[in-house]
Amino acid sequence: MHVDLPLDSLLEYRAATGAPADFDEFWESSLAEARTRPLGLRVAKVDTPVRTLDVHDVVFNGYGGHPVRAWLKTPRGADGPLPAVVEFPGYGNGRGDVLEGLEWASAGFAHLSIDARGQGAAGSRAGATPDPVGSAAAFPGFMTRGIEDPAAYYYRRLVVDAVRAVEAARTFDAVDPARVAVVGGSQGGGLALAAAGLVDGLAGVVACVPFLCHIDRAVTVTDAHPYAEIPRYLAVHRTRAGAVLRTLSYIDGVHFAARAGAPALFTVGLMDPVCPPSTVFAAHNAYAGPKDMLVWPYNAHEGGGVEDLRASLAFLAPLLDGK
Amino acid sequence: MHVDLPLDSLLEYRAATGAPADFDEFWESSLAEARTRPLGLRVAKVDTPVRTLDVHDVVFNGYGGHPVRAWLKTPRGADGPLPAVVEFPGYGNGRGDVLEGLEWASAGFAHLSIDARGQGAAGSRAGATPDPVGSAAAFPGFMTRGIEDPAAYYYRRLVVDAVRAVEAARTFDAVDPARVAVVGGSQGGGLALAAAGLVDGLAGVVACVPFLCHIDRAVTVTDAHPYAEIPRYLAVHRTRAGAVLRTLSYIDGVHFAARAGAPALFTVGLMDPVCPPSTVFAAHNAYAGPKDMLVWPYNAHEGGGVEDLRASLAFLAPLLDGK
Amino acid sequence: MHVDLPLDSLLEYRAATGAPADFDEFWESSLAEARTRPLGLRVAKVDTPVRTLDVHDVVFNGYGGHPVRAWLKTPRGADGPLPAVVEFPGYGNGRGDVLEGLEWASAGFAHLSIDARGQGAAGSRAGATPDPVGSAAAFPGFMTRGIEDPAAYYYRRLVVDAVRAVEAARTFDAVDPARVAVVGGSQGGGLALAAAGLVDGLAGVVACVPFLCHIDRAVTVTDAHPYAEIPRYLAVHRTRAGAVLRTLSYIDGVHFAARAGAPALFTVGLMDPVCPPSTVFAAHNAYAGPKDMLVWPYNAHEGGGVEDLRASLAFLAPLLDGK
Amino acid sequence: MHVDLPLDSLLEYRAATGAPADFDEFWESSLAEARTRPLGLRVAKVDTPVRTLDVHDVVFNGYGGHPVRAWLKTPRGADGPLPAVVEFPGYGNGRGDVLEGLEWASAGFAHLSIDARGQGAAGSRAGATPDPVGSAAAFPGFMTRGIEDPAAYYYRRLVVDAVRAVEAARTFDAVDPARVAVVGGSQGGGLALAAAGLVDGLAGVVACVPFLCHIDRAVTVTDAHPYAEIPRYLAVHRTRAGAVLRTLSYIDGVHFAARAGAPALFTVGLMDPVCPPSTVFAAHNAYAGPKDMLVWPYNAHEGGGVEDLRASLAFLAPLLDGK
Amino acid sequence: MHVDLPLDSLLEYRAATGAPADFDEFWESSLAEARTRPLGLRVAKVDTPVRTLDVHDVVFNGYGGHPVRAWLKTPRGADGPLPAVVEFPGYGNGRGDVLEGLEWASAGFAHLSIDARGQGAAGSRAGATPDPVGSAAAFPGFMTRGIEDPAAYYYRRLVVDAVRAVEAARTFDAVDPARVAVVGGSQGGGLALAAAGLVDGLAGVVACVPFLCHIDRAVTVTDAHPYAEIPRYLAVHRTRAGAVLRTLSYIDGVHFAARAGAPALFTVGLMDPVCPPSTVFAAHNAYAGPKDMLVWPYNAHEGGGVEDLRASLAFLAPLLDGK
Amino acid sequence: MHVDLPLDSLLEYRAATGAPADFDEFWESSLAEARTRPLGLRVAKVDTPVRTLDVHDVVFNGYGGHPVRAWLKTPRGADGPLPAVVEFPGYGNGRGDVLEGLEWASAGFAHLSIDARGQGAAGSRAGATPDPVGSAAAFPGFMTRGIEDPAAYYYRRLVVDAVRAVEAARTFDAVDPARVAVVGGSQGGGLALAAAGLVDGLAGVVACVPFLCHIDRAVTVTDAHPYAEIPRYLAVHRTRAGAVLRTLSYIDGVHFAARAGAPALFTVGLMDPVCPPSTVFAAHNAYAGPKDMLVWPYNAHEGGGVEDLRASLAFLAPLLDGK
Repeated sequence: MHVDLPLDSLLEYRAATGAPADFDEFWESSLAEARTRPLGLRVAKVDTPVRTLDVHDVVFNGYGGHPVRAWLKTPRGADGPLPAVVEFPGYGNGRGDVLEGLEWASAGFAHLSIDARGQGAAGSRAGATPDPVGSAAAFPGFMTRGIEDPAAYYYRRLVVDAVRAVEAARTFDAVDPARVAVVGGSQGGGLALAAAGLVDGLAGVVACVPFLCHIDRAVTVTDAHPYAEIPRYLAVHRTRAGAVLRTLSYIDGVHFAARAGAPALFTVGLMDPVCPPSTVFAAHNAYAGPKDMLVWPYNAHEGGGVEDLRASLAFLAPLLDGK
Repeated sequence: MHVDLPLDSLLEYRAATGAPADFDEFWESSLAEARTRPLGLRVAKVDTPVRTLDVHDVVFNGYGGHPVRAWLKTPRGADGPLPAVVEFPGYGNGRGDVLEGLEWASAGFAHLSIDARGQGAAGSRAGATPDPVGSAAAFPGFMTRGIEDPAAYYYRRLVVDAVRAVEAARTFDAVDPARVAVVGGSQGGGLALAAAGLVDGLAGVVACVPFLCHIDRAVTVTDAHPYAEIPRYLAVHRTRAGAVLRTLSYIDGVHFAARAGAPALFTVGLMDPVCPPSTVFAAHNAYAGPKDMLVWPYNAHEGGGVEDLRASLAFLAPLLDGK
Repeated sequence: MHVDLPLDSLLEYRAATGAPADFDEFWESSLAEARTRPLGLRVAKVDTPVRTLDVHDVVFNGYGGHPVRAWLKTPRGADGPLPAVVEFPGYGNGRGDVLEGLEWASAGFAHLSIDARGQGAAGSRAGATPDPVGSAAAFPGFMTRGIEDPAAYYYRRLVVDAVRAVEAARTFDAVDPARVAVVGGSQGGGLALAAAGLVDGLAGVVACVPFLCHIDRAVTVTDAHPYAEIPRYLAVHRTRAGAVLRTLSYIDGVHFAARAGAPALFTVGLMDPVCPPSTVFAAHNAYAGPKDMLVWPYNAHEGGGVEDLRASLAFLAPLLDGK
Repeated sequence: MHVDLPLDSLLEYRAATGAPADFDEFWESSLAEARTRPLGLRVAKVDTPVRTLDVHDVVFNGYGGHPVRAWLKTPRGADGPLPAVVEFPGYGNGRGDVLEGLEWASAGFAHLSIDARGQGAAGSRAGATPDPVGSAAAFPGFMTRGIEDPAAYYYRRLVVDAVRAVEAARTFDAVDPARVAVVGGSQGGGLALAAAGLVDGLAGVVACVPFLCHIDRAVTVTDAHPYAEIPRYLAVHRTRAGAVLRTLSYIDGVHFAARAGAPALFTVGLMDPVCPPSTVFAAHNAYAGPKDMLVWPYNAHEGGGVEDLRASLAFLAPLLDGK
Repeated sequence: MHVDLPLDSLLEYRAATGAPADFDEFWESSLAEARTRPLGLRVAKVDTPVRTLDVHDVVFNGYGGHPVRAWLKTPRGADGPLPAVVEFPGYGNGRGDVLEGLEWASAGFAHLSIDARGQGAAGSRAGATPDPVGSAAAFPGFMTRGIEDPAAYYYRRLVVDAVRAVEAARTFDAVDPARVAVVGGSQGGGLALAAAGLVDGLAGVVACVPFLCHIDRAVTVTDAHPYAEIPRYLAVHRTRAGAVLRTLSYIDGVHFAARAGAPALFTVGLMDPVCPPSTVFAAHNAYAGPKDMLVWPYNAHEGGGVEDLRASLAFLAPLLDGK
Repeated sequence: MHVDLPLDSLLEYRAATGAPADFDEFWESSLAEARTRPLGLRVAKVDTPVRTLDVHDVVFNGYGGHPVRAWLKTPRGADGPLPAVVEFPGYGNGRGDVLEGLEWASAGFAHLSIDARGQGAAGSRAGATPDPVGSAAAFPGFMTRGIEDPAAYYYRRLVVDAVRAVEAARTFDAVDPARVAVVGGSQGGGLALAAAGLVDGLAGVVACVPFLCHIDRAVTVTDAHPYAEIPRYLAVHRTRAGAVLRTLSYIDGVHFAARAGAPALFTVGLMDPVCPPSTVFAAHNAYAGPKDMLVWPYNAHEGGGVEDLRASLAFLAPLLDGK
């Protein structure tokens, strides 16, 4: 069943609250701090049963100089710099196995699939990147780690990692730095939006059923995890709602969207309780660059699934021709 | 939690009941009837965004001469006949989209991904093959369609389709008919076992967490669907248990296993309520050819997932070298 | 809890979308085709423990000339033609056992209880009528069989069967053809509305908590099965919503209601998630003949239960006196 | 799935614990006390739409002289005393509506359908009999009312009511007191067993999926309500298990069975979590009279449903011929 | 997720229906009747491991002169009359164990923790008070006992008990009768509101997430128990809604609130499906005395938990200083 | 229902696997490392509404010298050193609020209620202690943080904190270091057992429904969280079971029990799916000191609740008299 506002209202829906006054400053200083450390890129060829692609195990330094792992997959025998797709994983997932996620490289892109630090033990795709930073008392999961302080918040680290991942991608010989796109679904879509708001010159942005958008609304309109980690935390730490909502405002996709300029493709499922449609439309409607939205009226959080993939490939196909 | 017998018992577990006396005759005549009709192979190149593989839309005539669809994927530019993998889908799924299931062809195999007639609207992968045969009153799903008569039973048609799929695979120029393997998970694993019992000269069999094994036990030890469709039917048609169990005995993987000779790889999850471990071990322990079993102690019906894929690729890798 | 609009809104609620332009033509030709075949009525006395009623096993030819089974129950020793009640079953049910459903005949009516082809293995009442027609890939259940083509759709067959059942009832010696009513609950109510829209001269219509009304809305406001079979299908076949909704418009009770003239009794439960109240009111409010609605504020899909039966008996009681 | 011991073990299964030493004395004095009050039978003809049966509203004095309601249904125009079936309701139900439960009278029996005091507001059939006796702190439901004292226990009253109901049935002109049977399903089956153990000269006993048997085991092998009311009570009143189990031993069907002599028909569902099979077999195997058991391997608490009814009618059919 | 109206609407929300015309008369006569019997106070010192408090087992006569149990806890060695807090339990609970509920007395109050007759076997705190009054057919639980008649209704007895509890508290030497407050959560909050409306001169009222408010709305906006007992009853006794709603209007906290004068503290959880926020606001907004409301946006029925306790202690702290 | 072996078997049940060879060495070095840092005790009086107790906010340095918070509650005005109870929290909980957990101090003990680092945002009692240590990819929750390496494992830190808490308790003036007991329920019980195995001279140990015992079995016999975090992790990291089980063997309560000497009280619920009875009996039966077990046959993970508290107070009461 439809789980949110009627489609007419969604098409117009906008979040009422703006970004915190020091939002840009917060991210500038966060990124500046990260950039005080070298990217420290390490790349190692991996032997796999896949004969059509080359796979490399990539490590770069993200937030705090902590190593973050990724797979780089390229069509075997490709010559000349390729357009690149940097992909961020859904909640609980990591970069996965070398045998997973063959589509982008098979379609001709350099594909960099990034870990989410600390994640990758709860979904279908494993992760291999620790998060060496601890946290104050938190609800099980990642949403409330350090949530009372923007500087200590888990997702600050993840966003910095995402930006550094794009920077890493642009350094590969195999990659044309002018043709780098960011993609992801759910949490990955939220991180793609964050990168869109923080990185200049992206060639495209794909945010499928993005998470981490209009979070202050999300926590009141759905019981589904992982958004529900936040009200569960506040159900115990009842007097801390102000601090918590303030922290969340620094990583809200609505605010990143308002700062983005690259062409973007969004998708949304009108039956999605995990990332309720109004939160996705709030980000889409705030998006400052060229944009399009695929609406799936009868889908939940799986969204358009393989149709989203097909549309994403078509959306970024011009990059293959050097556009 | 572990959902069945202790591992010690599983390793020795065997089904008590044998195949019906006319089991072989039933399948011989079923296949003979199907072979009275031409395979009627139709193959059409499909344009896809995937640059590393060639994809063809395949139609062949299965049971009753009814058209069955499949995708044939091959590594682009491969020369000479390839080893082939014929894959059958899990319950509710079909051959899927051309963008799904790139692994086998990317690893160098000709990959024929077959529809299950009438299915492909309930899982993650769509199907495009009708089942033009109706049925007597049935519980929603496919398990009880025509279940009171072996000749009218839905799975008779699916098994014949599976055998004809192997026969179709062997006719392709791109395929070396001596190097054809059958693979599948869940229902696909059950169909792989059926093919293993009915087709000579297979080069390998992979049955991951196979369904349709020791069914008379399965319906008493799990509430999970789709096995549960059978007790749900019998809960209404209370006096028909004899006819129903007799019909099921003709498609039980335990009996196909006892007639198979090709090297086989099984996998099983000890926490799998969908295909309880004792039913998988019953098939494995009855398997007449060389065999191996991957046991995943902490997995449910997802079984070994990408590890099963990795092991399957390794198991069939010698075929790539012409072995 | 109340699961839909407030009662005030329900009382006024009307579906926005009209019938397809060729709705009447579709049904005229469907019925004309069916009538090219003889009814082929077969009636056999059944020996039962019930001493107050006579029971006959009835077979007539429905859609495609396919045999459809029914029970005919009459008060033992009744003389002269009786008013008749033709009853259609709820989803998953069939005509049931001869020991079930004694009420109408015990109250003096000739009672014809019809099977729903292919159903009768999932509810409390068994069925004995096959559906010999297969279908394209479908979600488990009956709602999506042939759903992309009105001509191939399962419910087209069921509606034709329903009309033919009324025609069969009118041929019995024991029945006064001028005093035939149609009744049913849930799917049976939907079929009663279909008969009301397609058959002239009915003496009454009872549609308790009717299913198959304002279906395009139903699939967006409830997760409950069987309506949910449709979004589950569309969740896989994402691009086929247009064709699916078009097919459904041919069997929507709202459109049959707008063409009906016989006096009708509706019932509805305001806590019914299976047949949400707005969909029932949409049919009631569109109903073109005399009509009444029993509203049960605290009931779910059981509706008025035995109170609905009592009201139905009272509503049709005048027929017993020859009115 | 099968929810209890394997069938082989069930066939031999016997409860280890015997009745309390003063079991017979307890019931003799309970009944003697009840019989100090007149039955106080009141019978009023009821006007119903059912033309084949006569229905009377019956009130008799049960435990404590409290009025208990019942429906008496007889075939219209029956002459001479009839065999009678006294039926007790399932948990949460009452005698229901005059339009419900037409089968026994339609088959030629005088049918007395009894209320369970205080119940009849939670199932499908309403009740109209108050229980004027209060209780100590109890878990919601009826199982723990007065449970720490056999004399104050709710089911003591219900059993006395059941015995008095048989005595009332025998006083009707329309009933042959030598041909009175007791029947019931679930709680009704438990009460039928109680009557079987306490009333002489019954012509038959039908206990379908009986409740209230081998209760000390039941509360450890199922989570299903209503048995679960007892462990839920003991989860709060942790130190009272001794008193509670002692009280329950006075109303355990196993002990009534051991005192019964009339021919009995039991039924059981091997997938029934509500009345686990071992508890039903414990009563059956202890039953001292002639007995039979219908085993439904694929049914839950619905047991044999209409097949149980058919078998019950056949089992008691000889009474119709005066046997 | 938020389960009711938006906060803006809640702040203004008022119930549309007023109290029955004879509401005051009903309670005056109910209390007058109760007061024809002596309070019959019995107080016994209890030996406990708690060294900082004195605990007494208290019995007083409530409705019908029936004994009601309570614990009286006082700070050991306190001299002079203390302010008292009379606490009523949540649904299913009783006064609990002497080791539970030490907070109020530890904070300096005389604390009288009252049983709810018949309850105390379903929550975490046991009860020891029988309800010697039986009832007509009822849904399991307490909500529908005697619900068709205000005079026979269970909650009439509970409200009378609550008033008598306050009267009992005022008779203790250790208690200053001018400084008696009533407190409770959920059902206990509903009873506190009842006492607030019926007892003069209370020094304070604390109603945390109160139950039994705007009940006619509650039963349509939540499925959660115990409110759901009422629609479940009406789902069977379909024609009795008028009588049922009338009875409930006599115990509705909205009407008690409109008659109260003592300063009150309410709390509410915006995610509380058990006592939906609009029903709590309806009582708060109708409350005739000074009042405050703690709104917990991210809490369900646990409300403010220990924060509610802290606020309650602060709210009543002035009483400790003799104010 | 009973969720594990029959009681007869439980009474004899012993884990088959022993502690790792370097178990003692592992803990000796872990504790030695911690003791290289000062306890760094900070104690601050807290102003609370509780007049019978004094409450202090305590911070001490635990594992890695990280600060750990606790409440110290003592009976107001107590003179001379008191026996002390060091209490560890259940999973997801912290030391709670100053208004919670008044029982031990009210009964005359010095009560030190310890935080579990990083926890205290998911249960009913909040925590205020960060865990500054990060981890590799983990399943949401605490069970799998660092689980592939005993040295990096989360519970290593928690056990060291527990030992240091006892050492801190012994330094208070208000505490007699010879009369210190450790208590806890669930995770707290597991930590109490750990302290029992690692700390000399404890005066008593109370482990109610202890968690973290015979973990290798627990993960195969229950689906309940938090044990289920481990198989959920292994379901993704399929090849790491060996490392994971090895790590868990270092914190298994069975091995701590085998090294303990202080008198111990265990409790267990036979219906507890969270800490299955066989895992609790395995620890009890291995316990090397004097021991007793309270068995609650009808309780789940709430165990004996207030009865466990009463028994614990009685068990430790002799300490109040200086014994």
